[in-house]
Amino acid sequence: MERKKIAIVGVGLIGGSLALQLNEKGLAAGIIGVEADPLHAKKALDLRLVDEIKDLNQAVKDADVVILAIPVDRLVVILPEVLDIVEHQIVLDVGSTKQLLIDLIKDHPNRTRFVGTHPMWGTEYSGPEAAVKGAFENKAVVICNASESDPDAVTWVRGMYQKIGMHLLEMNATDHDLHTAYVSHISHITSFALANTVLEKEREEDAIFELASAGFESTVRLAKSNPAMWVPIFMQNKENVLDVLNEHISQLRKFKACLEKENYTYLQELIENANRIKRIIR
Amino acid sequence: MERKKIAIVGVGLIGGSLALQLNEKGLAAGIIGVEADPLHAKKALDLRLVDEIKDLNQAVKDADVVILAIPVDRLVVILPEVLDIVEHQIVLDVGSTKQLLIDLIKDHPNRTRFVGTHPMWGTEYSGPEAAVKGAFENKAVVICNASESDPDAVTWVRGMYQKIGMHLLEMNATDHDLHTAYVSHISHITSFALANTVLEKEREEDAIFELASAGFESTVRLAKSNPAMWVPIFMQNKENVLDVLNEHISQLRKFKACLEKENYTYLQELIENANRIKRIIR
Repeated sequence: MERKKIAIVGVGLIGGSLALQLNEKGLAAGIIGVEADPLHAKKALDLRLVDEIKDLNQAVKDADVVILAIPVDRLVVILPEVLDIVEHQIVLDVGSTKQLLIDLIKDHPNRTRFVGTHPMWGTEYSGPEAAVKGAFENKAVVICNASESDPDAVTWVRGMYQKIGMHLLEMNATDHDLHTAYVSHISHITSFALANTVLEKEREEDAIFELASAGFESTVRLAKSNPAMWVPIFMQNKENVLDVLNEHISQLRKFKACLEKENYTYLQELIENANRIKRIIR
Repeated sequence: MERKKIAIVGVGLIGGSLALQLNEKGLAAGIIGVEADPLHAKKALDLRLVDEIKDLNQAVKDADVVILAIPVDRLVVILPEVLDIVEHQIVLDVGSTKQLLIDLIKDHPNRTRFVGTHPMWGTEYSGPEAAVKGAFENKAVVICNASESDPDAVTWVRGMYQKIGMHLLEMNATDHDLHTAYVSHISHITSFALANTVLEKEREEDAIFELASAGFESTVRLAKSNPAMWVPIFMQNKENVLDVLNEHISQLRKFKACLEKENYTYLQELIENANRIKRIIR
């Protein structure tokens, strides 16, 4: 693949990790960072995640590819602005919700320069210091509504994700938002709620935290995630998240009923059913 | 510490991992396995987790220390039988619930030979093949109601856990069962329920599993855990688990209400509160 000049808007966990991979895999003929937070901008330069920092307009003008790696509430503001000024550039986002964004720009005259993507990778940390080498490898990336984008743009974006080790999935924005509610968004809500459950108790009892086991850490890890990223995701995917959350609460109520009624045969069945998740995760 | 002849009753994940550590740290002058499942017994010998397999009576007679590493519903049956035949031996359990067990044997003439313990380590796997080297290191172990045990027994058990790298906590059985409901048992219920939530949906939609991210895997990992271990834990700790489960459902309802009422300020506050878990887990 031909090296391209790449602008990354938002040099945090995702943008920074992507910058490292793009350099590592020889995809970038220079990376321009665009970063609203001056401390993050300085840090991104110090860590050599990007070669230079420019303002959005200049960065778009100077780039062949523009990657938008900002929270989804900023994405709906910035993407139309970027599309207003693109000519030949390829523009992609890496956000966790797709329906609202893709609906928003569907009649934009430069719509076809945009490719909507969602690489299924992240950690509970944020900011440029959270960027890690080797991110995204062996994970899935979703490309949404590819038929609405120019073939040259889709081809380059697919190639980029394959080069950094991701496997490609294609689906429409509606299906994407439904599926991610199940396999990503609900996990964050259960983790936040579990943290709050335990912290509520901690007011009375400090000692319990010395006991925190690896199992607890695993289920509550995502509760460290940044609200600036997650509140907008839940807002934009409200209907799907509510559906899944209602289902999850009703599943928890089954466990509650088993205990209250001492129906341990059914409790055993519920757990055996949950064990079927082995088919899906290793 | 003097090496002792150790009998391990139940050579699965916990018993097997403990056997590896006891040998590694030079604490055992031979390990006798007691194992009801003949396939597990053979596997434990093949993997050299134990030196020999004996029946319970003979193993107790031949040992200096008897470690009970069986599910908590078996523990309430086996511990009284073991105490009936002990003379000089030290007996300890490694179960996840304590109140019922300790109440059960409180008037046994050999009560003082028993030390109730709970090493806070485990994985979602089970059986002797699941045993791993280096288990328990840098984790906490709880010793319950130590004043009810003979000083020589408590001293040896404390020393054993320190040698395998654990840090000691002491508390009474009542506090132990309350705290573990918060930092271990509820995590398993949320994982089981989350798995069932997603599997319920999977009947219609297969594709979603290709999307499963690291975050999802982390929150749902414990759903692979063995019902033969967990149903008895939930039975024995029913009241505490129900308290925590009710609190957890009410925390989830707060997220639901925020979304339904589009109260994103409060949603932000809930997530910021959950972020305080950073103080507790790294």
